[in-house]
Amino acid sequence: MEYYYHDDLSKDHFTLSSEESKHCTTVMHNRAGDNIVIIDGKGTRAEGTILSIDRSGCHIAILTRRVEKRERNIYLHIAIAPTKKRERIEFFLEKAIEIGIEKVTFLICARSEREKIDLQRLERVAIAAVKQSHTLFLPEIEIEKIEDFLHNNGNCEANKWIAWCDAASDATQLATAPITSEKVIIMIGPEGDFIQREIDLAKRDGFNELLLGDHRLRTETAGIYACCAIEVKNRQII
Amino acid sequence: MEYYYHDDLSKDHFTLSSEESKHCTTVMHNRAGDNIVIIDGKGTRAEGTILSIDRSGCHIAILTRRVEKRERNIYLHIAIAPTKKRERIEFFLEKAIEIGIEKVTFLICARSEREKIDLQRLERVAIAAVKQSHTLFLPEIEIEKIEDFLHNNGNCEANKWIAWCDAASDATQLATAPITSEKVIIMIGPEGDFIQREIDLAKRDGFNELLLGDHRLRTETAGIYACCAIEVKNRQII
Repeated sequence: MEYYYHDDLSKDHFTLSSEESKHCTTVMHNRAGDNIVIIDGKGTRAEGTILSIDRSGCHIAILTRRVEKRERNIYLHIAIAPTKKRERIEFFLEKAIEIGIEKVTFLICARSEREKIDLQRLERVAIAAVKQSHTLFLPEIEIEKIEDFLHNNGNCEANKWIAWCDAASDATQLATAPITSEKVIIMIGPEGDFIQREIDLAKRDGFNELLLGDHRLRTETAGIYACCAIEVKNRQII
Repeated sequence: MEYYYHDDLSKDHFTLSSEESKHCTTVMHNRAGDNIVIIDGKGTRAEGTILSIDRSGCHIAILTRRVEKRERNIYLHIAIAPTKKRERIEFFLEKAIEIGIEKVTFLICARSEREKIDLQRLERVAIAAVKQSHTLFLPEIEIEKIEDFLHNNGNCEANKWIAWCDAASDATQLATAPITSEKVIIMIGPEGDFIQREIDLAKRDGFNELLLGDHRLRTETAGIYACCAIEVKNRQII
């Protein structure tokens, strides 16, 4: 079953965006009278009928609506340095959404290999992943300088961890770490790693050193591993 | 620390391949007299000195050798249908090696979107991932028709699972599944999923239905999730 996206499903009548309309008609060959499923990325899954199709798009009338709540016990927020290659950032985001994530911050830090990020493009990647994986929820996505990120998250109640290559070998392993809060925040550095001052700032704000296995993971792999480990642990808690 | 690859480290003198020689000299600017680390993908990590560099490559003399054994308690074998897009297969392989995997079978089944696979290219991807992640061990990589795969693995002692989209909702969840054998074999189907006959054949050979969370995962995401979940569970057993 194909899902379509529209950010506001509160009204009974609306028109799909040009991109979604094109996919609905040209790719999926839907016609007036056909029923489709539309999601808003905020938990609503609606069934609608295509009233008509014209140059402005597919005009939809909602038939039924179901609003679901997030099912996970854990709220996962990953703050990750963007990779040099755009496809690796996008791959991380796609996989994170498929597996489970509530918030992503792209961290601009001293050794970030990329400072410019096309948020609109990443939102399109995120919407495609939500539609494809039937997860119903779009994560919050933002870009922040590491100082601002720490300022905004340093005081919050959460399991706060920072993963970096030179973490002490007896630091917490995510696989066996006890989850003691509903919220988990994990910082993941760039290929060249965080600098000492960033580690010190994070530690001062309550972030503890974290290991993600024993291997040297690429940035995007570290992010995907963290999502998987938290999803596994979330199921083990239930 | 950069790693170089040579498949046979038993001799005290050898020449790096043209690809590795080029990387060692042109990219990393090593010269005669410099010391480098070489791995064989079978657990050996050697230190060597560059004796000379000529058109045939970098001539190396081994200084020290250390042979390591696999550290994991679990031997993970994933049998996965190749995806239509080559980069998604390669991404799976790269991530699987970074996270941990012992054997990969690319499964040719009824709905496989690709039957031709460039094994040599995949081996290059695997070597790059082993070098980058410092894992020391190259997984075994093969291509098999699903009937041959089941014939070769149906009788072996292992936790054997098959993940497919229409698995019963009360099927085993990998996150909470007890691991009762040293070997785990997980079959992952193509985007169009396994056909009923393939499921029946697998079940007859002792493969049980498996769930990888609740979301609809892409083939390569399912493979990566399985690697992460097994790595997390491996650490929890210790």
